[in-house]
Amino acid sequence: MKYWWVNHKQTQRQEINGGYLWSPKKEANGSKSHFYDNMRRAEPGDLVLSYANGKIDYFGVVSDNAISAPKPEEFGSTGEYWSNEGWELPLVWERLKESFIPKRRFPEIKLFFPEKYSPLNEQGNGNQKAYLSEIPKELADFVLTAGGADLASTPPLPEPRFEAIESNLEDVVEHFVRSDISLSETERNQICSARRGQGEFRKNVISIESSCRVTSVRRLEFLVASHIKPWRSCSSGHERLDGCNGLLLTPTIDRLFDRGFISFSDSGELIISSRLDKTDVNLFSLDRRSEPRSFRREQKSYLEYHRAMVFLS
Amino acid sequence: MKYWWVNHKQTQRQEINGGYLWSPKKEANGSKSHFYDNMRRAEPGDLVLSYANGKIDYFGVVSDNAISAPKPEEFGSTGEYWSNEGWELPLVWERLKESFIPKRRFPEIKLFFPEKYSPLNEQGNGNQKAYLSEIPKELADFVLTAGGADLASTPPLPEPRFEAIESNLEDVVEHFVRSDISLSETERNQICSARRGQGEFRKNVISIESSCRVTSVRRLEFLVASHIKPWRSCSSGHERLDGCNGLLLTPTIDRLFDRGFISFSDSGELIISSRLDKTDVNLFSLDRRSEPRSFRREQKSYLEYHRAMVFLS
Repeated sequence: MKYWWVNHKQTQRQEINGGYLWSPKKEANGSKSHFYDNMRRAEPGDLVLSYANGKIDYFGVVSDNAISAPKPEEFGSTGEYWSNEGWELPLVWERLKESFIPKRRFPEIKLFFPEKYSPLNEQGNGNQKAYLSEIPKELADFVLTAGGADLASTPPLPEPRFEAIESNLEDVVEHFVRSDISLSETERNQICSARRGQGEFRKNVISIESSCRVTSVRRLEFLVASHIKPWRSCSSGHERLDGCNGLLLTPTIDRLFDRGFISFSDSGELIISSRLDKTDVNLFSLDRRSEPRSFRREQKSYLEYHRAMVFLS
Repeated sequence: MKYWWVNHKQTQRQEINGGYLWSPKKEANGSKSHFYDNMRRAEPGDLVLSYANGKIDYFGVVSDNAISAPKPEEFGSTGEYWSNEGWELPLVWERLKESFIPKRRFPEIKLFFPEKYSPLNEQGNGNQKAYLSEIPKELADFVLTAGGADLASTPPLPEPRFEAIESNLEDVVEHFVRSDISLSETERNQICSARRGQGEFRKNVISIESSCRVTSVRRLEFLVASHIKPWRSCSSGHERLDGCNGLLLTPTIDRLFDRGFISFSDSGELIISSRLDKTDVNLFSLDRRSEPRSFRREQKSYLEYHRAMVFLS
């Protein structure tokens, strides 16, 4: 279990009401951000302190791993809706009995702050560049105790939210596809049935793949046509229907792949996330997996996306 | 691979155009029917001759196992829509080059007909009581050759259709639930989200089951809340939301259970259908399954339905 501190800046209201955190994937100038990368390091059950306007009013429990998602519409529109791809982290928030104002207690808590990537600066004010920062348990405990959080009744691990978020995002994409007049009615239907791994997309995948790359199951009725680069993240109808952007997987393996618990190297080796514990690796029989088969060139670019943007490293 | 002969009676047009066969589950008087039970013995890849009005004009390839389904609306309404529960068998039909009239060739083919459950009577006329009858390969070959079917180009095994049929049926049920004014808005929403194994239903199942009864996986994000008696077949909102009508299963096990390839005895023993071949039993690791745990009394009545109506014996 890890402890985090988020500097919300202007979006606290939306993030608290919506039960999530959202950040871009990269800095405005395109460079990597430690604070944004932390979104993917947070795990279900982790605790987050919400800091905005000089005080902490809420703490939250992470309910699922972050999912690749566009900037929430409620942030207000700044440019093209879909261009701002980021991470959405689902949480269940709880209000503290009393606001905690870090600057007032700064002498007592100063030592708990990390030297690097600290959410507060030397003066105890919010660090402008910080978003999600890891903090030591001691600091979280101090704030929660001072804020009157009833730790004995800390909310139990909330229900996973990934599916609900994914389904909402996909609804929005489907709406855009349905109203895209540059596509024919047939194309729109094909692209939308690809969302469920059905129709043309499934046929296209079957023409390229013949069995599950993990379990070796060949019987088609037991196999799901699963997008490598997720349907919601594809940048065109072509990508959504491309047989090279799909694998045939049994439903459980599809779930693990879709949620980023497994991925594949270009040569077909199974990559297992450290988020999956040994017991589950064993229960899912990932230890009995089939011989790796190298991927085609066209499949590799989709796999590269999957390893970078879906896989939970 | 098995060979079948169907006496369509009045519904040939709908069944050929719709790509299926449909029969009740029982005789009008409630007794079992060998001809209707054959619907569940037919398997993907089996061949069916279509007989109506004294001739055979079509043959079909079975594309999926039969699914429990109400009488198709296009048959015309005879009483309450949902009361007439039957079997729907998906096929891909192909027209013969020439009609085959069995009575004209009866002397040549008479010996091929089975003594019991024959689709034709001693005079070579359709047997009124017959619906789906098993016939020997020789008879099927004779008819197809005489009818000019290009056997070398017999259609390849068609795509499974189960999912499409199930989803259509569920859409109809959802429509009825949505327009049921005896339910509150909240109840309607709860019942409809139970269709996807979500919401109240999932919570109710989690309060009763704690892990997958086949793989032992406990982590909730990898478990599906699966109806024992299928959502579409439930007779009330209570059954659709009842936690005792659910199991927590990994997605692959959910698929096998939903399609009737596996079931459970009241004492929790896994029952594997003979439709699942040894290779798949092994690939799905069904041989490594967890210790059986006995079911509660309330779960047993749902399991009884599953074994009788969903399991492919």
